[in-house]
Amino acid sequence: MFKDMTLNEFTEKIASSDPVPGGGSVSAAASAIAASLSKMVASLTIGKKKYIDQETTMKEIFEKSENLRNILLDYIDKDSQAFNEVMNAFKAPKETDEEKSKRTTLIQNATKKAAEVPLNIAKISFEIMQLAEVVVEKGNKNAITDGAVAAMMARTGILGALYNVKINLGSIKDEEYVQRLKKEVETIENQTKLLEQKILTKIDF
Amino acid sequence: MFKDMTLNEFTEKIASSDPVPGGGSVSAAASAIAASLSKMVASLTIGKKKYIDQETTMKEIFEKSENLRNILLDYIDKDSQAFNEVMNAFKAPKETDEEKSKRTTLIQNATKKAAEVPLNIAKISFEIMQLAEVVVEKGNKNAITDGAVAAMMARTGILGALYNVKINLGSIKDEEYVQRLKKEVETIENQTKLLEQKILTKIDF
Repeated sequence: MFKDMTLNEFTEKIASSDPVPGGGSVSAAASAIAASLSKMVASLTIGKKKYIDQETTMKEIFEKSENLRNILLDYIDKDSQAFNEVMNAFKAPKETDEEKSKRTTLIQNATKKAAEVPLNIAKISFEIMQLAEVVVEKGNKNAITDGAVAAMMARTGILGALYNVKINLGSIKDEEYVQRLKKEVETIENQTKLLEQKILTKIDF
Repeated sequence: MFKDMTLNEFTEKIASSDPVPGGGSVSAAASAIAASLSKMVASLTIGKKKYIDQETTMKEIFEKSENLRNILLDYIDKDSQAFNEVMNAFKAPKETDEEKSKRTTLIQNATKKAAEVPLNIAKISFEIMQLAEVVVEKGNKNAITDGAVAAMMARTGILGALYNVKINLGSIKDEEYVQRLKKEVETIENQTKLLEQKILTKIDF
């Protein structure tokens, strides 16, 4: 799995002429890192007298961010797999009419999955961004810039994943499906930009 | 070195209650990933008939991005080391007046370094963002979203690093130095926001 690669190996693998891991997997990695940073700020807040009122909140963030970090690390592979499944569908036989029709269905289904996987990455990353908001607002002030970086990494994870949803929607023929996902994408996009702005204005330097 | 840690280990290390690696190191990692994505798009463009006019440009990006990836991977450690040097300076003896004065100088110098390291990360990351601009504009259109993610990762690398410059400037007493770096920070910040906007408007979906 990609999470078992070193940073050097992972970035080498991205850089190769293999289209995966690409932007979708990178988005998942970005948000996994964002989750870790939020967990760090929670760790640096828990047990500190000055932040005793935030103890319960920070312990919650500690748990949640660890959970989301693990989920996102697995999504690095899931996104690349979804892309490979689309590529495989294209390789299906297309001699007879029956084969052609079967192949089209295979491609369409695989492409829907390749849109849904990054949509999930975006949704989970949005939860991570919400954790970043809390650590910036209520966490140890010495680590406030770490919370800011967490928020921006999650933002890039979300918007990056959404680009990967949109590029796949371009090949899907089920118009109702496309419109439904487009709306979801737009909503998350707008929420993300607003939330990032809101978080970063809390850092007054 | 951090680049020899697996993604799982690296994110665990971030998440720990040790303040390093924190937002500065993460910013360097984000930009190293951005460099890899730009290199991937260049790789997917080189040798393609349709993009024969871009062959020289893409080969240049291939070389440059590999170089910048390596430099940034090393900066993950450099940023954490710079932070640790500040912590060590605080541990210097402070019994006599001479010791106190020496300690103050040590802290001030270490803090200047802890501001300069992320400033360098930001500057190198800006070069990476410029490579992302070229791959989005001239690279293989099938990988345009990878270029977009590269641009956003570099943007987060830059702005994240600049937060780490600014938090350190807050502890530096040399007012002339502070003002000079603040101006640099502001310039890069503005250029980065404009460049990201410019790149993303090139992606019309």
